[in-house]
Amino acid sequence: MRNSTLCYLERDGKYLMLHRVKKEKDINKDKWIGVGGGFEDKESPEDCAKREIFEETGLVAGKLEFRAIVTFVTDKYETEYMHLFTTEDFSGEMTECDEGELVWVPKEEVEKLPIWEGDKIFLKLIADPCPFFSLKLTYAGDSLTEAVLDGKRVFPVM
Amino acid sequence: MRNSTLCYLERDGKYLMLHRVKKEKDINKDKWIGVGGGFEDKESPEDCAKREIFEETGLVAGKLEFRAIVTFVTDKYETEYMHLFTTEDFSGEMTECDEGELVWVPKEEVEKLPIWEGDKIFLKLIADPCPFFSLKLTYAGDSLTEAVLDGKRVFPVM
Repeated sequence: MRNSTLCYLERDGKYLMLHRVKKEKDINKDKWIGVGGGFEDKESPEDCAKREIFEETGLVAGKLEFRAIVTFVTDKYETEYMHLFTTEDFSGEMTECDEGELVWVPKEEVEKLPIWEGDKIFLKLIADPCPFFSLKLTYAGDSLTEAVLDGKRVFPVM
Repeated sequence: MRNSTLCYLERDGKYLMLHRVKKEKDINKDKWIGVGGGFEDKESPEDCAKREIFEETGLVAGKLEFRAIVTFVTDKYETEYMHLFTTEDFSGEMTECDEGELVWVPKEEVEKLPIWEGDKIFLKLIADPCPFFSLKLTYAGDSLTEAVLDGKRVFPVM
């Protein structure tokens, strides 16, 4: 079991995306995702998100919007609980990131990048204000086999 | 790190409370809490809550309201992430619980029972509809030393 955070920083209709090209052994190798990482001891979800934002971007986040928990079940890795945040409240000077290249990408173009199939589901949900949700994504290898939103299956649709 | 659920079943202005008097070695010994327990492998927060509700009460829950994540930091135990739910949607016949006595308690009287100090904070918040929140509670032994709500300290108040 692993707890993690993922945060999309937003400015001028763009998300700050991380193109994960720098680490050889990376579950997200070559994929584009937001910034984030694993919980450290005694951290709340917000504590972790703020630390990871700072470590990966040099930016200091203020108020975060806690949007969702995404449960990832796979046949390869332990189950991961990813705490999803968005924020427009951050300041400071952006630095280089050890884990990939940071690029501001227009929100409507993110879907066209090489991203995980299930990410499209939550990116669509968080594009607009919406209540907190819990999304369970099940993968076989790189293929999404099931998505359950707040207890109701949304993929595959029978 | 431990992930768990806690659920308050509500009917006629009462919560179903569990008086934890049956297990000798119980972190909640003699306290009154809702029903719930630890995540099993591959469970989403809702999966766990529904399983625990069934195991502890015999009731089958339908739609759950995901109200909060509570991060418990203590000097004695590993950090716990408790996923807090409420529901008025359940059916079936109530059974006996191995872990304590199940009692329907009027919501306004719950605060007078022997409950954890920090529980009063989230019970007050969930008594009425409110947006999802993240609450971090730090304990030294049985004493609450700090409470941080959505990144802002609410206890102690300076």
